[in-house]
Amino acid sequence: MRKLNINRMLERIETLGRIGATPEGGVRRIAATLEDKAGRDQIVAWMRELNLKVEIDRIGNIFGTLEGINQLPPLMMGSHIDTVSNGGKLDGPLGVIAGLEIISSFRDASLIPARPITIAVFTNEEGVRFQPDMMGSLVHAGGMEVEQARAAKDRNRMSLGQALDDIGYSGDLSCGAVTPSWFLEIHIEQGPVLEAENITLGAIEGVQGIYWTGITIKGQANHAGTTPMSLRKDAGYIAARLAVEARKIASEIDGQVATVGRVDLKPNLINVVAGEAYLTVDLRNANETSLRVAQQRLEDVIAAIAHEEGAEIDTEALVRFAPVEFDPAMVDIIEQEARRGGFSIKRMVSGAGHDAQMMARICPTAMIFIPSIAGVSHNPNERTHAADIEAGLAVLSRTVDRLLQS
Amino acid sequence: MRKLNINRMLERIETLGRIGATPEGGVRRIAATLEDKAGRDQIVAWMRELNLKVEIDRIGNIFGTLEGINQLPPLMMGSHIDTVSNGGKLDGPLGVIAGLEIISSFRDASLIPARPITIAVFTNEEGVRFQPDMMGSLVHAGGMEVEQARAAKDRNRMSLGQALDDIGYSGDLSCGAVTPSWFLEIHIEQGPVLEAENITLGAIEGVQGIYWTGITIKGQANHAGTTPMSLRKDAGYIAARLAVEARKIASEIDGQVATVGRVDLKPNLINVVAGEAYLTVDLRNANETSLRVAQQRLEDVIAAIAHEEGAEIDTEALVRFAPVEFDPAMVDIIEQEARRGGFSIKRMVSGAGHDAQMMARICPTAMIFIPSIAGVSHNPNERTHAADIEAGLAVLSRTVDRLLQS
Repeated sequence: MRKLNINRMLERIETLGRIGATPEGGVRRIAATLEDKAGRDQIVAWMRELNLKVEIDRIGNIFGTLEGINQLPPLMMGSHIDTVSNGGKLDGPLGVIAGLEIISSFRDASLIPARPITIAVFTNEEGVRFQPDMMGSLVHAGGMEVEQARAAKDRNRMSLGQALDDIGYSGDLSCGAVTPSWFLEIHIEQGPVLEAENITLGAIEGVQGIYWTGITIKGQANHAGTTPMSLRKDAGYIAARLAVEARKIASEIDGQVATVGRVDLKPNLINVVAGEAYLTVDLRNANETSLRVAQQRLEDVIAAIAHEEGAEIDTEALVRFAPVEFDPAMVDIIEQEARRGGFSIKRMVSGAGHDAQMMARICPTAMIFIPSIAGVSHNPNERTHAADIEAGLAVLSRTVDRLLQS
Repeated sequence: MRKLNINRMLERIETLGRIGATPEGGVRRIAATLEDKAGRDQIVAWMRELNLKVEIDRIGNIFGTLEGINQLPPLMMGSHIDTVSNGGKLDGPLGVIAGLEIISSFRDASLIPARPITIAVFTNEEGVRFQPDMMGSLVHAGGMEVEQARAAKDRNRMSLGQALDDIGYSGDLSCGAVTPSWFLEIHIEQGPVLEAENITLGAIEGVQGIYWTGITIKGQANHAGTTPMSLRKDAGYIAARLAVEARKIASEIDGQVATVGRVDLKPNLINVVAGEAYLTVDLRNANETSLRVAQQRLEDVIAAIAHEEGAEIDTEALVRFAPVEFDPAMVDIIEQEARRGGFSIKRMVSGAGHDAQMMARICPTAMIFIPSIAGVSHNPNERTHAADIEAGLAVLSRTVDRLLQS
C-alpha cells in the first residue's frame, strides 16, 4: 500500500518557491528565463532521483515518466512552473509537485503502476513574456505549430526558441509525441468561491468560454461649462453606460460574468467632455449558447446607445475561446473519491485558463481545485491552507488509482 | 459722429495672432513668456499710437486710458491676451482689440468722451503656467494679495513675479488703483449654443457657479474570470454608475450641467476587476440654490452606491465658486442695443470663467458673447465669422455710448 507524504510535498513546494523568490514573498520565474531554468533543473533533478525517464520536447515541455506494467499510453498529470512577474508558489507548481509526490509514493512502496505515469511540466503557461499563454500545452495538443510558437518574440525581440536554446531546454522530443490516456491537473482556484462557501475541493467540469472586445467610442470633446447637455456627444458617459449595461447582462444570464476592467478617456481632464473613449469588456460563461447570448446583448446595447447618443462606436473582437468541457466520467470519479475521503467538494467551472483545457483536446481530462485564501492569486499573497493541499493530493491520488484500475 | 473700422480691428487681431503663431494655425502666448511680452509690446504700441496714458501695475495688468471731459472713474473695457498652449486668436484679444477700436473711433473723429475710457489687459487669465486662472483681474478686484499672486510658481519653480520682472512687465501702479464706473468685456462664446440656435449675440447675465469634486473608490481587484459577480467590489463599475448618475442629476435640475471628464482605473487591465478608481465630477449652474441641490444629490448618490456595493468612496472638493451675477441694467442695455442694431441676441449665462466675473466684485459689469464656430475654443480651429465680430463690436460701441450718456 503506497503512502503519501504531505510534508515532503510541502517541502518541495517551498524548495521550488525559493527559486526566483521576490522580496515581497512571491516568486518571479518567467518563462524561459534563468529563474525558469533553475526551476526546471530542480524538477528534472527530482525526476532523476525518482528514476523517471526524462524527456524534453522542442517547445521545452518536460515529461518525467514512471514505467508501468503494461505498455499503454500513460496517465499524465502536470501543470506549469512559470509564474507571472510576482506570483505565488502554488500557481502551477502544485500540479507538478503533487504528481511527483504520487510517483514518490509508488517508489517508496516499490510499486509499479498498471500503466506508465507521466508528469508534465508545460512551457509558458502564463504568457507574460511570450504570447499566447498556455503555449506548451497548446503546442502539445496540436493547436499551434511548434516553429510558430518558438518564433514568438518578447519585448526585446528575443524569440522563445532562442531563449529555450539559451537555457538548454530546446529538447529533441517531437511535440505531441505522447498522447496520454488521461490528463489530470490539480490547481489552486484563483478565485474566492470555495473559501466563501467553506468547501474544500472543486471538481472542475470545464473552463469558461471567453469573449474579449475592445470598444472605441468617438464622441466630441467639449468644454464642460459652455456645452449644454443636449449638445454633447460625451464618449465618457457612453463608456460608463456600457459598463453599467455589462453588469446588467451578467445579472440576466445564468453563469455569466462581465467585466469592464479598462477605461481610457481622452483628453481625461476634469473640465473637458471626453471626445474619445476606449474600454474593454470581458465576458465569460461555461455555456457556449449563453455566451453567445451575452455577446449579442452587448452588441445590441452598443448599437442602441450609439444611436441614442449620436456617437460612433467601433468594436474589435480581441479574444474568443469556446468553453471547454472536461470528461464527465473523470469529474464523477473525482467527486466520488472526495466524498469517500470525507472532503466537501463542489462541481464548478474554471474561470481562468489552464493547461488542462488544451489537453482536453486530445484525451479525457479533468481538474481538481483547492481553495485560494481570499481568492488571491498572481500575487505574493497567494496562499492555500496546508490541510487543503493535503486534501487535494489525497483525492488526486485516489483518482489516479481509480483510473489505473479501469 | 465716430465710425468703427472693422477692417482695422480684424487686421489688429491678425497682427497680434502672428505673435506666438503655431504650425497648426493657433497661438501659443502663455502668460509672462517672451511671446506674451511681444504681444504686450504690440498692445502698448497701439495704445501709444492712440496717445493713451499707459500704466502697468505690479501684477502686470496693462491699462491704456483715453482721458475724458470729466474727471470721473473710467468706463473700462478689456480682457486678456495670454492663451492656452495652442489656442486661437480671439479668446482674449477680442475684448482688448474691440476696446482699442472704439477708442480709435473716438480719435478718428477727434471726440473726447464724457468720462475716461480705459482698456485693460489682465495678466494670466488662462492659468496655464501659473495658478489660479483669471489672476490679474482677481488681484485687481482685491480677491488675492498681489505678492501672493507674484509668488505663484510654474513647473520650473520660476515665480510669476520673477517672470514679469524678466519681461519688463512688473509695473509701478499699485493693484486695484483704478475702480471703474463700469466694466464691459466682449468675448467669444467658447460653446455651441449661439451657433446651434442661429443667434448672433449673447447678453451675458452672469457666470455659472462651479463645483469640482474628485472621487476615490476603493473596491477590490479580482480575476475577471474566477470571481462571481456577487463577490465583487468593482471600483470601475461604481465609477461608471456615478458617471451615469451625474448625467441624471443634470437632466433633473434646471440649467444644470454635469461632466465626468476624468476616469482612472487601477490596474486598468482587461481581465482584472478594478480595485481602485478615481473620477472627477464637474457640476455647474448659474443658480446657487440649484447648484447646491446638485451637489447634495451627488453626495446622496455616492453614499447610496457605496452602501449597495460595499465599497469605500472618498470625495474631495477641488473647486467651488458661487455663480456670478452681472449688472441687470447693463445687460438690458446690451440687449436693447443689439435689437436696435437689428441683431438677434439671447440672454444667457457663461459656462466658462472670464475676467469680467472678477470685475463684477467691484463695479457694475456685463459681457457680450459672439458665436464660436462649432463651439470650438482653446484650439487652433477656434473661429468666428467676421460679420459676427462686427456685430459684437457695433453693440459694444453702442453700449459704451449709452453708459457714457448716463
